[in-house]
Amino acid sequence: MSPPTTASAIVSSSSSSSYFTLFPLTSTSPKSKPTTKLSFNFSKTQTRNLTLKTTTTTTIRSAVSIEKEVPETERPNTFLRESDDHDSPSSSSSSSTVRSRFEKMIRKAQDSVCKAIEGADGGAKFKEDVWSRPGGGGGISRVLQDGAVWEKAGVNVSVVYGVMPPEAYRAATASAEVKPGPVPFFAAGISSVLHPKNPFAPTLHFNYRYFETDAPKDAPGAPRQWWFGGGTDLTPAYIFEEDVKHFHSVQKSACDKFDPTFYPRFKKWCDDYFYIKHRGERRGLGGIFFDDLNDYDQEMLLSFATECANSVVPAYIPIIEKRKDTPFTDQHKAWQQLRRGRYVEFNLVYDRGTTFGLKTGGRIESILVSLPLTARWEYDHKPENGTEEWKLLDACINPKEWI
Amino acid sequence: MSPPTTASAIVSSSSSSSYFTLFPLTSTSPKSKPTTKLSFNFSKTQTRNLTLKTTTTTTIRSAVSIEKEVPETERPNTFLRESDDHDSPSSSSSSSTVRSRFEKMIRKAQDSVCKAIEGADGGAKFKEDVWSRPGGGGGISRVLQDGAVWEKAGVNVSVVYGVMPPEAYRAATASAEVKPGPVPFFAAGISSVLHPKNPFAPTLHFNYRYFETDAPKDAPGAPRQWWFGGGTDLTPAYIFEEDVKHFHSVQKSACDKFDPTFYPRFKKWCDDYFYIKHRGERRGLGGIFFDDLNDYDQEMLLSFATECANSVVPAYIPIIEKRKDTPFTDQHKAWQQLRRGRYVEFNLVYDRGTTFGLKTGGRIESILVSLPLTARWEYDHKPENGTEEWKLLDACINPKEWI
Repeated sequence: MSPPTTASAIVSSSSSSSYFTLFPLTSTSPKSKPTTKLSFNFSKTQTRNLTLKTTTTTTIRSAVSIEKEVPETERPNTFLRESDDHDSPSSSSSSSTVRSRFEKMIRKAQDSVCKAIEGADGGAKFKEDVWSRPGGGGGISRVLQDGAVWEKAGVNVSVVYGVMPPEAYRAATASAEVKPGPVPFFAAGISSVLHPKNPFAPTLHFNYRYFETDAPKDAPGAPRQWWFGGGTDLTPAYIFEEDVKHFHSVQKSACDKFDPTFYPRFKKWCDDYFYIKHRGERRGLGGIFFDDLNDYDQEMLLSFATECANSVVPAYIPIIEKRKDTPFTDQHKAWQQLRRGRYVEFNLVYDRGTTFGLKTGGRIESILVSLPLTARWEYDHKPENGTEEWKLLDACINPKEWI
Repeated sequence: MSPPTTASAIVSSSSSSSYFTLFPLTSTSPKSKPTTKLSFNFSKTQTRNLTLKTTTTTTIRSAVSIEKEVPETERPNTFLRESDDHDSPSSSSSSSTVRSRFEKMIRKAQDSVCKAIEGADGGAKFKEDVWSRPGGGGGISRVLQDGAVWEKAGVNVSVVYGVMPPEAYRAATASAEVKPGPVPFFAAGISSVLHPKNPFAPTLHFNYRYFETDAPKDAPGAPRQWWFGGGTDLTPAYIFEEDVKHFHSVQKSACDKFDPTFYPRFKKWCDDYFYIKHRGERRGLGGIFFDDLNDYDQEMLLSFATECANSVVPAYIPIIEKRKDTPFTDQHKAWQQLRRGRYVEFNLVYDRGTTFGLKTGGRIESILVSLPLTARWEYDHKPENGTEEWKLLDACINPKEWI
């Protein structure tokens, strides 16, 4: 039996994945052979009053397969197709597209986060893998493993070109009678999970992504669709209230610059998303999470995503500096390892990007870089009431308002 | 948000789960409120010439929820309902049913495997949890953790009474026009995963189960349905050919006593089932696996399942005795931990019993007792060609004939 390159899958635009290949659908490369089923689920859950587009839920089955990635020896200036890259010398247009500006933003964020991580680690360096797909797109995967401070740190960016099943495209202005053909789409994102060694230093996850379809050629009036998604969340094994307050305050500040409703709404969305159903607990202490965001000005949302990505270092690194050398016992370490086990459970069982990536034959090592270096499962472990371990668990079961 | 007690799920009669509650469908207790979707998939994949029943594949959606288990302070003589327990003093019948004999068999097997494990471990003892469900059925969960030889060893038995969606019942002799109502069913099984500490001592999994429906009352001529399933498989981190040969030989001997086609057929079925698709590799070196087995004499299959369960100790314990004290390095341990990571990936992502259990709110600690105490994920780890680690991986990618 040969390793599968295609599989049945569920794709959701709500992916919060640490998986760096965001929407690895059928490439437009003539090599790819669509052979398997894809369930494409657009869930629009915005409740904001000013919503410009109607709430729609569409579930579609269509063909998808994934094009095999090719390793590259050097980072290209851009993973965009030439036709998208208005900054390229051969381009006839001089205005940068949102695609291009988003790619630049995530690559800059990757550089600055990696620099801050290496600085705080004080010795270890990221290992880089660059890859591309013949049909367009590609990515840069960076992993720092077994450093002085971090057990495992992955920071990935990717750009994906794909073709969306026609049934997946629903434009608010398009007539219901108009049936477009397959719609090409573009997705780009940065995704990162950072697992420190010290049990008092928290794990961080963040992911920001931009999604855009072409305007369907055969459905007049149907527009280009786009949306933003992402979030930053903190997963400590022990609660230092000042750390959690600091982390959430930075998220709130980033949100408040754009809309006072963002933080409360995205904080709750985060608590709801990172829920380990079979445990009845969240994997950590949350932060912000949003998806399918398109009911604001596009420039405003691009600025918002940029602000969020730029907030990762000031939200996280000061906590690490404070906790990385805290003395700890074997018991503290064992508890951290149990929480790491919960992280594995969430990512393998619930995270949409991870489960999608596993099913569609994406780059496995990039998909699973989110898993910790080490994890532990003890039978029927229950922290004693009132202990520090119990306090963490209680906050994962009953999410709190930190600020 | 309160912990969910119900969820959408896929149940398959092909479950090879280490999950001890085999088919926790809607209990007949009036307390249970069916609220969620169940996809019930009967896949009959037998290819034997003498097949008595037609091959059918039926996918059904219906309601299911799970009744909460209640801890018990003592092991009851039986988990059967009194009406099923023909050995009870109040029973009017004197002949033991297959239900009753299968329960006795698995409880005896649990005792003997636990005794052998404790004997080889030389000190550690199993911790026992007994539980029941008000509507009938229950189980005994036994876990030995952090012993001298085993890192984590779980041996569970369970008996489940449930109600099958009417669409799930297909009787070969029933007219297609006859639509039975919900069909009560019975399931019982033993399930075990044994993870040793020494990286040269292999992990073992085994699971034997019996499933039976009532004859639908409102579909005259539709008979009682039943089948057997199970298997025993070995997951070493390093290959000792004599160990793998010994293990497979014992499986073959058990099979050959009943049918010369069993071993080759169930060996292949095992290789196919324990496949980690996203890795393109099996989790271990296989053994035997079968499911939906009903196209032989029922007495013969009960004897066969009994023979298989009785073969666990002679197949496994001699290997442990030989390897448990082998000196090892940190590198050997790290490789074992990486393979444990693969075990976690298989169980959380693919194992039907585990994924079903997680989704339907079964007893989580029993479901996840199959996970190792510790596991490890290194980014992009590739054993060097020709090393012992490479040999194991190669055998997981390209299954071999061991005897």
